[in-house]
Amino acid sequence: MSTLPMILSRRLRPSPFEQRTIENGATLFSLYNRMILPMVYESYEKSYEHLCKHVQLWDVACQRQVEIIGPDALRLTELITPRDISQCAVGQCMYAPLCDEHGGIINDPIILRLAQDRFWLSIADSDVCLWVKGVAYGRGLAVEVFEADVSPLAIQGPKADDLMADVVGEQARDIRFFRFIDATVADTPVKIARSGWSGQGGFEVYLQDSSKGNDLWDLFWEAGRQYNVGPGAPNLIDRIEAGLKSYGSDMTIDNNPFEAALERYIDVDKDAEYMCRDVLLKLRDAGPARRLVNLFIDGEDLRPMRSDWPVRDAAGKHIGIVTSKVWSLKFGTNIAFAIVNASHMAAGSTVTVDADGELRLATVKTDTWGDA
Amino acid sequence: MSTLPMILSRRLRPSPFEQRTIENGATLFSLYNRMILPMVYESYEKSYEHLCKHVQLWDVACQRQVEIIGPDALRLTELITPRDISQCAVGQCMYAPLCDEHGGIINDPIILRLAQDRFWLSIADSDVCLWVKGVAYGRGLAVEVFEADVSPLAIQGPKADDLMADVVGEQARDIRFFRFIDATVADTPVKIARSGWSGQGGFEVYLQDSSKGNDLWDLFWEAGRQYNVGPGAPNLIDRIEAGLKSYGSDMTIDNNPFEAALERYIDVDKDAEYMCRDVLLKLRDAGPARRLVNLFIDGEDLRPMRSDWPVRDAAGKHIGIVTSKVWSLKFGTNIAFAIVNASHMAAGSTVTVDADGELRLATVKTDTWGDA
Repeated sequence: MSTLPMILSRRLRPSPFEQRTIENGATLFSLYNRMILPMVYESYEKSYEHLCKHVQLWDVACQRQVEIIGPDALRLTELITPRDISQCAVGQCMYAPLCDEHGGIINDPIILRLAQDRFWLSIADSDVCLWVKGVAYGRGLAVEVFEADVSPLAIQGPKADDLMADVVGEQARDIRFFRFIDATVADTPVKIARSGWSGQGGFEVYLQDSSKGNDLWDLFWEAGRQYNVGPGAPNLIDRIEAGLKSYGSDMTIDNNPFEAALERYIDVDKDAEYMCRDVLLKLRDAGPARRLVNLFIDGEDLRPMRSDWPVRDAAGKHIGIVTSKVWSLKFGTNIAFAIVNASHMAAGSTVTVDADGELRLATVKTDTWGDA
Repeated sequence: MSTLPMILSRRLRPSPFEQRTIENGATLFSLYNRMILPMVYESYEKSYEHLCKHVQLWDVACQRQVEIIGPDALRLTELITPRDISQCAVGQCMYAPLCDEHGGIINDPIILRLAQDRFWLSIADSDVCLWVKGVAYGRGLAVEVFEADVSPLAIQGPKADDLMADVVGEQARDIRFFRFIDATVADTPVKIARSGWSGQGGFEVYLQDSSKGNDLWDLFWEAGRQYNVGPGAPNLIDRIEAGLKSYGSDMTIDNNPFEAALERYIDVDKDAEYMCRDVLLKLRDAGPARRLVNLFIDGEDLRPMRSDWPVRDAAGKHIGIVTSKVWSLKFGTNIAFAIVNASHMAAGSTVTVDADGELRLATVKTDTWGDA
């Protein structure tokens, strides 16, 4: 694993759950929205095996919430994404790429509709708040936009339903996918959504008072003992196997939703105004020049990727780059995401990955890791 | 020193100078604008002593450049800051707090005027590019706003002039403070400004091709051998002694320029439109409710600060927080920045600092560390 020792300062914000994650043995960290994100307890492999069988608490407070509230909240939220937000009911979540006027992806949050005129954008790693504030100011819209004091704690794994039912009652089992309820847990109001950045299912609990981090953690921890609860984190193996893309690694502002293979999460013809409509209409007609694809890479486990790994065609021509990779325990091979030229985006295409000088054959797979 | 091991991924960008900084013994790092920033070689103390006597190369590529170019570039740049940018000549730099419509500080870049209608914002740690893009889009301004491929290498210390004169010629000595010139160094075009985040003077060299990081480093390194050149980094001791504030630590979006003691860098009555004029006019009349001040803290060297340290008055009432602190080699005491209520902002005021439960007396100093 490629790691560096990081000095902490006030600029790099602690999470409300930090004390508990360190007590529980977090050993490796990342920074996400300038907040500490515990990434590894023991190892990715052990944590993956536990996640697939039991239930874990994940400190994902770094998924900050950008609140948009006011008479123009819907209009503004529609403006910044090609997803049709008018279809999002109060109490519902929607995954929505945010796109600038060129179609470049600014972030890919889960949007929670809290009220007709109130939204949270549960964001990936970029200052969405600043962008949305700028757009709102520039347009003179009647909204307030700010980062709310909200810190998600994810409860992930096959026993998450049992644990949540014990904590908030049997109605927890009835929460549908990407819906949320209000509840009071550890004497503090929370929102509980059936969502989370794993392939194993579960919930995200939105703590709304950062001084209550230990209380919330302890309540789920104690209730979870009978389910073999453990500390966990977004797991590299699980998330790539589940096809979950990471903003900043697998897509950036240099990619549009077609390149990032996000067609199912946009509605180019939606009624509301959005800033990249003209660009996306053209892109839809022309088709993407390059595309994010799934890859199986032959051979033994590859070293961690630090610099970009080029992808080449049979003639050795540079046709793309690998964006994330891991050794899959499920498939017993190296799996990866890569952005490649359209010529090689079809499932079944074969390419070569240049892993720091080591050449490996690779095959493009469907987005569920099958062949075409 | 409070540190944690960080996992690297594509999301956390390498600097063009990273190979050289690691070869030269960088041991501790930070993340700044999602880019790796080497912070410590050996120790703050040794690096400080070297910096005050010789010359150092600093990898500050993480000071990313937000480029604003186009017919409305000046209008937009004026809009986002209370500083009078019309007074900035081509070839000049200006330190300028960027403020939202509430007066909250978004960032505090050095603005370089490259042409009448072209600026770089050499930014601190927040996504200024997204905010400015949002404002420009919302207002429908005729500009392009993007992060340029520009990576500053700082040359800091008393021998910086000698080194720069050897590399680009004697005219380097004539570059005035906060002015820049164009030059070609290591066969690549750069801009060289007399600026930098130390109290020891020097230059910042703006590399405009990230593939040339090693070449640029090596050229200055070889030429610097006779001046006892060393690797360095923004030094916590030097920067607090020099009164340099760090955005994200010493001020945030929750502070306005009066609270952040930045009056000398704003022109509330400037002619051009800017978004927080009404707010600043009111604040100027009312005076700030709290203010960033310099503190001497009594007693021995304090442990590194991880959680907020409250500042209290004689009655024990919470009146502020410490934002940065270090043991000063120059003054032989703990020196700090703190935001305190207006009641205690005058030089000579005494307060108590609660350093993780350890109470220490402290005295407010002038911003040059003298008494009033």
